[in-house]
Amino acid sequence: MDSRNGSVSETPLDAEIESFFDSAPPLKDSAGIIKKLKEFIEYNSTPPGKGSPRRVVCVTSGGTTVPLEQRCVRYIDNFSSGHRGATSIEYFIKAGYAVIFLYRRGTFQPYCQSLPEDPLLECFECSDDSTIQVRQPHTEAVKRAVSDHHAAIAGGHLLKLPFTTIFEYLQILQSIAMSMKDLGSLAVFYLAAAVSDFYVPWKSMAEHKIQSASGPLDMRLVQVPKMLSALKKEWAPMAFCISFKLETDSKILLEKAEMALKKYRMHMVVANELSTRKEVVTVVTGNEKILVCRDKTRADSDVEEPLIELIVGRHSAYIKDSDL
Amino acid sequence: MDSRNGSVSETPLDAEIESFFDSAPPLKDSAGIIKKLKEFIEYNSTPPGKGSPRRVVCVTSGGTTVPLEQRCVRYIDNFSSGHRGATSIEYFIKAGYAVIFLYRRGTFQPYCQSLPEDPLLECFECSDDSTIQVRQPHTEAVKRAVSDHHAAIAGGHLLKLPFTTIFEYLQILQSIAMSMKDLGSLAVFYLAAAVSDFYVPWKSMAEHKIQSASGPLDMRLVQVPKMLSALKKEWAPMAFCISFKLETDSKILLEKAEMALKKYRMHMVVANELSTRKEVVTVVTGNEKILVCRDKTRADSDVEEPLIELIVGRHSAYIKDSDL
Repeated sequence: MDSRNGSVSETPLDAEIESFFDSAPPLKDSAGIIKKLKEFIEYNSTPPGKGSPRRVVCVTSGGTTVPLEQRCVRYIDNFSSGHRGATSIEYFIKAGYAVIFLYRRGTFQPYCQSLPEDPLLECFECSDDSTIQVRQPHTEAVKRAVSDHHAAIAGGHLLKLPFTTIFEYLQILQSIAMSMKDLGSLAVFYLAAAVSDFYVPWKSMAEHKIQSASGPLDMRLVQVPKMLSALKKEWAPMAFCISFKLETDSKILLEKAEMALKKYRMHMVVANELSTRKEVVTVVTGNEKILVCRDKTRADSDVEEPLIELIVGRHSAYIKDSDL
Repeated sequence: MDSRNGSVSETPLDAEIESFFDSAPPLKDSAGIIKKLKEFIEYNSTPPGKGSPRRVVCVTSGGTTVPLEQRCVRYIDNFSSGHRGATSIEYFIKAGYAVIFLYRRGTFQPYCQSLPEDPLLECFECSDDSTIQVRQPHTEAVKRAVSDHHAAIAGGHLLKLPFTTIFEYLQILQSIAMSMKDLGSLAVFYLAAAVSDFYVPWKSMAEHKIQSASGPLDMRLVQVPKMLSALKKEWAPMAFCISFKLETDSKILLEKAEMALKKYRMHMVVANELSTRKEVVTVVTGNEKILVCRDKTRADSDVEEPLIELIVGRHSAYIKDSDL
């Protein structure tokens, strides 16, 4: 970490974070990622033609893995389809935001949610003259996926950065945050990824595949340091921050969301329960609990539409306040 | 398990297997899967027109997951792209086999290996008159993927059954094996899936998400019973069986492959090392160790081509021997 700049004396959290990054395997093409980020943010800060800089949101999506062996055969994974993040991006782009999409490889992509599981093999056919055609019921969905997705990238409003492990995720997130620091209150973090709570430190990890010959496997995993604190305190202190809390047990959900809001000084925590998360979420702020529901009068509606509308409104107010 | 038919006294392994299946969450649409299997095997046993029944191979592919919570947020996963299984299928079909493909959702599919990671978004573009077209360098790869894949399914030679968890994998494998029992020596098992060695028994599993509040996470996982023994002894005793051994440490690889051959009475064990598995494998049989290499004089060759050629030859000899 080079973001410290002679800050105050080291707290135990700082030490934990430093040790996490020190022990992590080095990120591949770290310089390339930082270059892409720089260009993307510069382009959107001074968009050609019209004058005002775009707001930039970093959307994280999908689950991180925790390798159990250095030459990774086994790992612990966190379930997340990436549906929330991918859908939200469409509304952020519609609202004029530039989006940095930090996503788990293989999870949902924006504009692709209504496609079947294996789009290539399910949506296409080879005609008699051996040209590839879209199969009938999928025509519109495929057209939308391909054209809207390419338009967002070609327009310079969508930058996609994939990750797999917790090490990659946190290293890239740090680079993104530090690139976005100068955007001040125009920056948003929308942290929908399912991040591992526990990990095996790289250096204490088995190099080779763990052998199954003898009896049960006992594992000790340590807690991943809470990076949200570092994000808020050091990486991008002026950014508007939204994190997510997913639980399967509704009884503890709101309480845990409130704890996260205070502990990490988030602006909003979106509380969602595994079984109802596509219908309703509760947005917890410092003094409110706002129930956000999908518009049930429309079959194709989603909960992300009113959710992003709410967030954009609150972010506008936050920018205004910051300018005072 | 209903395959016992008053067999000999229960060994500890039988008890372990029974307890695994008893405690597993019930398989969704189990009756539908069995019906599909029955129809597929009947169709290929009495192919229309020409008389002789097809050989049938069950190819398993990809890694199984082990849920750590019943309402699954976290799970242990086994790394496997599914490349070996998917590529091998093409050569089995070419050699006239019917293929039952038991694959992990989201892993490689036959005829699709030369496509980029996200084929829909990378291989297609929307033209000016808003029709969807294949982008230039991908034309042949997409055509091959779509037409060959559909031809195999439409021809009745490829049945695809997806799994995610170890519970689904072993339950479907048992159904497949018992459906293939009557094929006798015409049946082949090509077990390339990366199957979890350890699992958390469903009933001792946490119902809700494990909380990260307090300290490190200690986990105890128990061994998955070795189903290969049951497959060979009870489910489909006449089938020709090939299993795989993957290690990251070349020093123990062959020794472990030989152990597996003897212990589970496989006909062949394919030994492969993580870092060189696309170039070379060693096939271990009762009295040989056969090195199988990719043809390096051709850029587009793969190690599966000579591997399946070897297997088909040995399987032919096995059928002949069984008929004597």
